[in-house]
Amino acid sequence: MYFETILSPALLPQYNLSRKTVIVIDILRATSSICVGFNSGVSLFHPVANPEDALVLEQVGFITAAERNGQKLQGFTLGNSPFDYLNTDLNQKKVAITTTNGTRCLHLSREADEIIIGSFLNLNAVAKYCKEKNRDVIAFCAGWKDKFNLEDTLFAGALAQLLSKDFKIECDSTLAAMDLFDKAKSDLSGYIKKASHAQRFERLGIEKDIDFCMQLSIYDFVPKMVGENLVL
Amino acid sequence: MYFETILSPALLPQYNLSRKTVIVIDILRATSSICVGFNSGVSLFHPVANPEDALVLEQVGFITAAERNGQKLQGFTLGNSPFDYLNTDLNQKKVAITTTNGTRCLHLSREADEIIIGSFLNLNAVAKYCKEKNRDVIAFCAGWKDKFNLEDTLFAGALAQLLSKDFKIECDSTLAAMDLFDKAKSDLSGYIKKASHAQRFERLGIEKDIDFCMQLSIYDFVPKMVGENLVL
Repeated sequence: MYFETILSPALLPQYNLSRKTVIVIDILRATSSICVGFNSGVSLFHPVANPEDALVLEQVGFITAAERNGQKLQGFTLGNSPFDYLNTDLNQKKVAITTTNGTRCLHLSREADEIIIGSFLNLNAVAKYCKEKNRDVIAFCAGWKDKFNLEDTLFAGALAQLLSKDFKIECDSTLAAMDLFDKAKSDLSGYIKKASHAQRFERLGIEKDIDFCMQLSIYDFVPKMVGENLVL
Repeated sequence: MYFETILSPALLPQYNLSRKTVIVIDILRATSSICVGFNSGVSLFHPVANPEDALVLEQVGFITAAERNGQKLQGFTLGNSPFDYLNTDLNQKKVAITTTNGTRCLHLSREADEIIIGSFLNLNAVAKYCKEKNRDVIAFCAGWKDKFNLEDTLFAGALAQLLSKDFKIECDSTLAAMDLFDKAKSDLSGYIKKASHAQRFERLGIEKDIDFCMQLSIYDFVPKMVGENLVL
């Protein structure tokens, strides 16, 4: 079994997703917040390409979540911060969600056999899931507007380290990600805060989101796409 | 002045090259071999998109160099190995060259103000050139068939370290490249040999090319594009 890493959606055309498990990674913050949402009782997330689609689903009982350029859009219940999903009653709620990078990657991964959600918050659960499935794995980093980013790459490296005995790793992107995680792991939050995306976050005043999203394996579940929905 | 890194040609559309110096990097082996060629007396390299164009130029006195998938094409004088350029009389010769990744990147960089050639063999000279030019810099990694590779990234990191006092570095790709170079620098050849591209090389029996290409700053010049030619 092979483990590969796609460092940005712009690199996707060089990879074949069929018969593979794809782990979509958008650490700051879509895939982290989705995990928080499930922990708060969300029954399903329905990823949509644009905010208008979320508003249509609001008419039929969905909660709406929309983020662009790091900020919650006006007129929507939730944004992309994990704290939105901690401080709102979400028990048994369906959420229609659209974000700058993360939800787009879910759509781009359609050819995969299976699409799951990865974040540091459920790292060990994702590793366990991949081992049990016995299928090639692709860590798909959402990046930032098609550019490489550090935080998603670090997660790919952390996961690869956990799977390195069970999977063949011959892909330079994964080797780089593992070495970067090695460098960062003693102070993950500190390392991420020097990154460009985190600096953008500082300007938005949401540094506490970073500390929250860097917690390791506080949840023991793996959200996955079933049809057009993310469920547990 | 800003320093940015493009980790693969597939990421190029996310960057604006105008008014910038672009350093094209194809460590294994186009940009290394081009440096060796100039040191052996080549007067100019003319990069061409396909082998047929090189053969046309042979009719008017050019030496031909053509590589695809790591191997020299039959019917051409030179391939892509640095040793080809050490062991052939190249004094005052013009070379028409086409390679899998490197020459393509020269063409893709056309919007830049200036395009120069970077390799470990002329690392210090490239750094000095960038400092003197007083212009934003983009390290453009050729990668391998649009995928990320380690050796080109390591060069971007090495160059960024030399320029970190003179340039602003806010780009995650560059931060990652610098940390990877930190990890690799004590044994650059050994580090590269674990990479996928190097493993492909091992199958081709050209490991000695890697050792050669990892020598630091043995040449003190910077090849640059002038019109359609690379010259010193």
